[in-house]
Amino acid sequence: MDSTDDASWQKLAAAKREAILDSIPAKWRLANIPTVDEQRNVTGAYIEQFLSPKEVEITQADSVGIVEKTTSGAWSAVEVAEAFCHRASLGHQLVNCLHEAFFDAALADAKELDAWYAEHGKPKGPLHGLPVSLKDQFHVRGVDTTMGYVGWIDSFQGQKGDPRSKTFESEMVRELRALGAVLYCKTAVPTTLMCGETVNNIIGYTWNPTNRHLSCGGSSGGEGALIALGGSPGGFGTDIGGSIRIPSAFNGLFGLRPTSGRLPYEGMANSMDGQNSVLSVVGPLASSAGGVKLLTKSILSAEPWLHDPLVAEIPWRADLEAQTKDRIASSQLNVGFLDHDGAVAPHPPLKRALSLLRDVVARSGNKAFDWQPPASSHEAVTALLIKTWNYDGGADVRKDFALSGEPWAPPLLDVWKERPPADGAGIAETNRALRARRKEYLDYWNGTGGGDVFVAPCAPFAAARPGRFDYIGYTSFVNGLDLPSVVVPVTTVDKGVDVVDAGYRPVSELDKKIQSDLKSTDDPEIYDGAPVSLQIVGRRYQEEKLLAIAEWLEGELKKASVS
Amino acid sequence: MDSTDDASWQKLAAAKREAILDSIPAKWRLANIPTVDEQRNVTGAYIEQFLSPKEVEITQADSVGIVEKTTSGAWSAVEVAEAFCHRASLGHQLVNCLHEAFFDAALADAKELDAWYAEHGKPKGPLHGLPVSLKDQFHVRGVDTTMGYVGWIDSFQGQKGDPRSKTFESEMVRELRALGAVLYCKTAVPTTLMCGETVNNIIGYTWNPTNRHLSCGGSSGGEGALIALGGSPGGFGTDIGGSIRIPSAFNGLFGLRPTSGRLPYEGMANSMDGQNSVLSVVGPLASSAGGVKLLTKSILSAEPWLHDPLVAEIPWRADLEAQTKDRIASSQLNVGFLDHDGAVAPHPPLKRALSLLRDVVARSGNKAFDWQPPASSHEAVTALLIKTWNYDGGADVRKDFALSGEPWAPPLLDVWKERPPADGAGIAETNRALRARRKEYLDYWNGTGGGDVFVAPCAPFAAARPGRFDYIGYTSFVNGLDLPSVVVPVTTVDKGVDVVDAGYRPVSELDKKIQSDLKSTDDPEIYDGAPVSLQIVGRRYQEEKLLAIAEWLEGELKKASVS
Repeated sequence: MDSTDDASWQKLAAAKREAILDSIPAKWRLANIPTVDEQRNVTGAYIEQFLSPKEVEITQADSVGIVEKTTSGAWSAVEVAEAFCHRASLGHQLVNCLHEAFFDAALADAKELDAWYAEHGKPKGPLHGLPVSLKDQFHVRGVDTTMGYVGWIDSFQGQKGDPRSKTFESEMVRELRALGAVLYCKTAVPTTLMCGETVNNIIGYTWNPTNRHLSCGGSSGGEGALIALGGSPGGFGTDIGGSIRIPSAFNGLFGLRPTSGRLPYEGMANSMDGQNSVLSVVGPLASSAGGVKLLTKSILSAEPWLHDPLVAEIPWRADLEAQTKDRIASSQLNVGFLDHDGAVAPHPPLKRALSLLRDVVARSGNKAFDWQPPASSHEAVTALLIKTWNYDGGADVRKDFALSGEPWAPPLLDVWKERPPADGAGIAETNRALRARRKEYLDYWNGTGGGDVFVAPCAPFAAARPGRFDYIGYTSFVNGLDLPSVVVPVTTVDKGVDVVDAGYRPVSELDKKIQSDLKSTDDPEIYDGAPVSLQIVGRRYQEEKLLAIAEWLEGELKKASVS
Repeated sequence: MDSTDDASWQKLAAAKREAILDSIPAKWRLANIPTVDEQRNVTGAYIEQFLSPKEVEITQADSVGIVEKTTSGAWSAVEVAEAFCHRASLGHQLVNCLHEAFFDAALADAKELDAWYAEHGKPKGPLHGLPVSLKDQFHVRGVDTTMGYVGWIDSFQGQKGDPRSKTFESEMVRELRALGAVLYCKTAVPTTLMCGETVNNIIGYTWNPTNRHLSCGGSSGGEGALIALGGSPGGFGTDIGGSIRIPSAFNGLFGLRPTSGRLPYEGMANSMDGQNSVLSVVGPLASSAGGVKLLTKSILSAEPWLHDPLVAEIPWRADLEAQTKDRIASSQLNVGFLDHDGAVAPHPPLKRALSLLRDVVARSGNKAFDWQPPASSHEAVTALLIKTWNYDGGADVRKDFALSGEPWAPPLLDVWKERPPADGAGIAETNRALRARRKEYLDYWNGTGGGDVFVAPCAPFAAARPGRFDYIGYTSFVNGLDLPSVVVPVTTVDKGVDVVDAGYRPVSELDKKIQSDLKSTDDPEIYDGAPVSLQIVGRRYQEEKLLAIAEWLEGELKKASVS
């Protein structure tokens, strides 16, 4: 396609990029954006200088704190929505985290909620007046879903003239509205969704707001960046190889990758939709464990299994949550710790985080033990997972790139290059192998003598350096095994403490390369200040247990940082 | 392969067939088998003439009645096992329903259970001393699993010399043993499992014991025949297109096709294993609704999700069962009735059964309404289901036929003939289409204003005439939609009442052909006496609700037949 053509992908992308900026009111536009050297961390005090004290108060609250105010009438839905629209607008200008901003619609919805409250004297639902951000795979009326594809602009998943364009809504969007949530923006993703960083030809690269040298993660990277900036108290992403957990971890957030079939994916856009050996799942990210729980519990209260044929009828189990709290209180919890997966060592800050969390568990009288699954099992599961991504040989994503003629935005890699598609017999073989690996893992788990959950890094690094996300094995095995996992932020990188372990002998060339990434030659302190998080992995469908443990750890870590 | 060769498939099959007969003690061998004209129905009084009064008493009890006696010490596990081994032996000689008989092992296990009871003064588990029969897909130590393939004799799923041969046990077998069940036989299946009749080159054709003109159904046909004969109080089959429900219906039994992921399939043999768009599921068949419930509830009490990675953590929900009973008692139940699926009309006896059940519902004050899903939705779902069976183009089953060189036993049809295998993109397309159909069906269901369940035939005929099972649409749509379904026997064909509806205009050539099957030119009363059953279909994972309704209907139908 001729790049001087009016319909050239560059022009279309530029127009869309401008339209996103134009959806930010002029009063909220920043005159200039500091360079990373001027301002590495743009969260907290930096972004708050542009807000009113009331806006700061509102946007510092977590989801639980917000609904306490909005469901009791202490804060109006409109003032809360406006504060988050403002802060999200600032955030986008600082790190490119939005694909869609629909603040007028949000404020109109908030006004209706306030009228409802005035009329009925009670909230519309458990999320009354709570702003919820959404990864740009959710269809929301009135706006595009591009998933970063230039060819999807002004269409329904690439189909021009489809009547569902800008009218159809995903099932969870309907539920969120019914629960009283206020929808106001959709967040950035890497094109194809198959990347641990966030970049596309429309909005460019999304930076980590806590440390703008680094990636915000992906593929729910816009969510991670926005929530870390305080531009959203919580929202929803999706995860097929780590895409909720990586941005949660890189941005110091709580994030849940539920078991497949727990939360409703019905009616969302996706890559390679119909591949069902390992399903992508939808789940919440939030600034607190309570926020993740609130979103999860609220969606389950909407009985999604009545509207999504893939959701299992498992309501929120308060009994499992209570049993878990009892186990913790009575020092019966058994927590495994995966310190090294045998393929790539976690960087020193991650090792320190593992050690910190072990101490929390041990100090409470609960049991910490070494998680040692069968050798190479993680590696084998990831290899099988990658096969599932290749079933169509990349036909689906290539079709979407071809719509506009846009190229792959670096550092996206064409993982399908030179790999032929699979056939029915090959897919069946992969499914059998996956089932055998899951069974092997279950058998290991049963042999641990009552292990409740285990702790693992989400990546070998605190956050990826751009273009250097070379190893997904710490998140991908969870998808291949279809286990629920919740991310817990533990600490931040401290350049004075997290020094290279000179004695470590890399186990492979890849390990060596990733260890060497710890220090940039340009900036040896490149990681300083970046969030360091870990994931807690549970048995299938035990989201309640994971969230109870996450809330407990959040409290313990706060106590520890105060003391 | 030369058929005069020692290893010819005919010789191997004959040797195996003899070995099965040889596993029946000489004292239990029948001197002669009556022809169908001499004795159409070999169940009940006919087979009981060969049993002692005590054996009759034991084998007339259903599973619930048996465990009442065995868990209280009133009956020993040995006497119960022996009675069923005897009756199963007679049954096999009459209709060819067994693939494996391991009575010595069963009696040894029963002896151990009696010793356990004597030592502990209590039963080992809820199934203490209960004989349970298994479709020949379960691996049980000490015996073959052939699934009807000559090439699987003396191997592990066709692999000669595999150390798992005759040693490996399926997960559910382990659970059944732990629950106290006594395993004693494995039952006949059609080769490939993809057939509504039961026939293979080893044991030949399995007849319907209630009416030996007709098929016992398939693919869990040996189970259906054996339980109808009283040779088992209950057992387990599998269902990917109707294979539990068809033999349940044809033999006048209760049978549950659970939602996928409810009961453990781990470690079972299967056809086209690894095809996961529509999973085959395992479920119980029994002579009473209580028997089906007992087996389901007991397996769930073994927490199968700890040992099968595909099972969801959903224990037996006594609350859902109780709520359902309350709904029935308070006349709140809404029951849909599918009288005609738009493609093939049910024969007159089925129409009468639908009307009988409608009357039961209406008389109780509960609501009966017409179940009218979107036009052609059943047809479309079945077409998609058949696509999933064809993903590998038949490679898997052809490989297993090729092991011995045996031909397809008629009336098996090579459904894969001239159909090419699918590729990754095609499989994804089928998965998306299936999901859309499931969503469409859910939306219809939600629009019925609180429909709890719906009733439908399992086939257009009471039981298939050999070689004439030409329409699976009444069971297959349930698999494509992945809904749970329980079969309830309603009545039997009455030649005086179930006359041809001369006014019916067939909707298609297939419909016309199937309507004409009602009367055989050789024997116009061919169906007389055959069981007539219906299925109750529920929402996903609501097995508890279905079984409560089945128990209620069983009671009401008994009352009606007495009055």
